[in-house]
Amino acid sequence: MLIRDATSGDWPAIWAFLRPIVAAGETFTWDRDVSEERARAMWLLEPPGRTVVAVDADETVLGTAKMNPNHMGPASHISSASFMVHPGHAGRGVGRALGEHALGWARAEGYRAMQFNAVVETNTRAVRLWRSLGFEVLATLPEGFDHPVEGYVGLHIMYRPL
Amino acid sequence: MLIRDATSGDWPAIWAFLRPIVAAGETFTWDRDVSEERARAMWLLEPPGRTVVAVDADETVLGTAKMNPNHMGPASHISSASFMVHPGHAGRGVGRALGEHALGWARAEGYRAMQFNAVVETNTRAVRLWRSLGFEVLATLPEGFDHPVEGYVGLHIMYRPL
Repeated sequence: MLIRDATSGDWPAIWAFLRPIVAAGETFTWDRDVSEERARAMWLLEPPGRTVVAVDADETVLGTAKMNPNHMGPASHISSASFMVHPGHAGRGVGRALGEHALGWARAEGYRAMQFNAVVETNTRAVRLWRSLGFEVLATLPEGFDHPVEGYVGLHIMYRPL
Repeated sequence: MLIRDATSGDWPAIWAFLRPIVAAGETFTWDRDVSEERARAMWLLEPPGRTVVAVDADETVLGTAKMNPNHMGPASHISSASFMVHPGHAGRGVGRALGEHALGWARAEGYRAMQFNAVVETNTRAVRLWRSLGFEVLATLPEGFDHPVEGYVGLHIMYRPL
C-alpha cells in the first residue's frame, strides 16, 4: 500500500465510495445528499490543507484522508483530519496507515496537536482505531449526531498532542 | 438597546472594533492580520447563518453577534455563535443581551444545542458570562491558544442544550 497526494484524476475513485458513505449518514457530519461539486471542494484541499489516497500496487484507491488546520490564528497549531476507507477494502489496515500518515504530516508541518471535531460514538471501529493511535475522547456532545438507525447518539471530540 | 439584523451599512462600524479585537490576538481564533474583505465574509453571514448588531437609541453599534450551524448533516441540530462588544461600551450588558438573543434565535430555528468551539480560558469575562447563560465547559484543549501575553493557554469548548 502506498500513500500519496491525491490528484484530480483520483476524484472519480474517491467519489465512488465517499458518496455512499456520506449518504448512509452513519459516520459523517456532511449533508447526506451532498452534491459532487461540493463534496469535491470539501475533500480535495489546497494548502495549508492536504489530501492523500492510499493505493494498491495496481493504483486501486483503497482509502483517502484530508488534513488541515482545525483552527486559525492563535490556535492554528491545532490540526485536524478526516478519513474514508473503501468498504470493499476494510480490515486491511488502510485506516491505520492513513491515520499514522496524517499524524506524521501534522508533526512535519509543525502542528502541536490533532483534534477531531466529530467522531460518532457508534462508529466504534473508528473510535478504537483513534484510541490505539494515542487519541483520547476529550468530550462527547450529548445527542450530537442523529443516526438513521440508533437515533441521537453522542459525538466525540478526540484529541492528541503531537 | 435594540438588537436587529446587521446590514452592509453596519460593516464599517463593526470593522472599527472587530479589527483591533482580532489584531490583539487575545480572544479570537482568527488570523490577527485578517483582511477587511475576508473578515466581512466571515462575519456577515447568509442564511442559514445570521448576523445581528446591538444598537443604541442613536444607532451607535455597541456590539455584534453571528449565529450559524456548528456542524452539517446529521449534526446540523447543533448551533454556534460568536460575539464582539465594542470595548468603549463594555459593562453595559451588551454581551449578555446578544447571548440571550442568540439562544432565542437557535431555539426558534429548531436547534437542539449551542456549542462554542473556542473560548479562550483567560477570557474570564466571556467564560463567566456563558456560564451564567447556562453553558458548561465540556472540554478544554490544553495549550490550544497562543496568547500574546500569557503564552499557551487552554481553549474551552462550551455547550448548552436548548
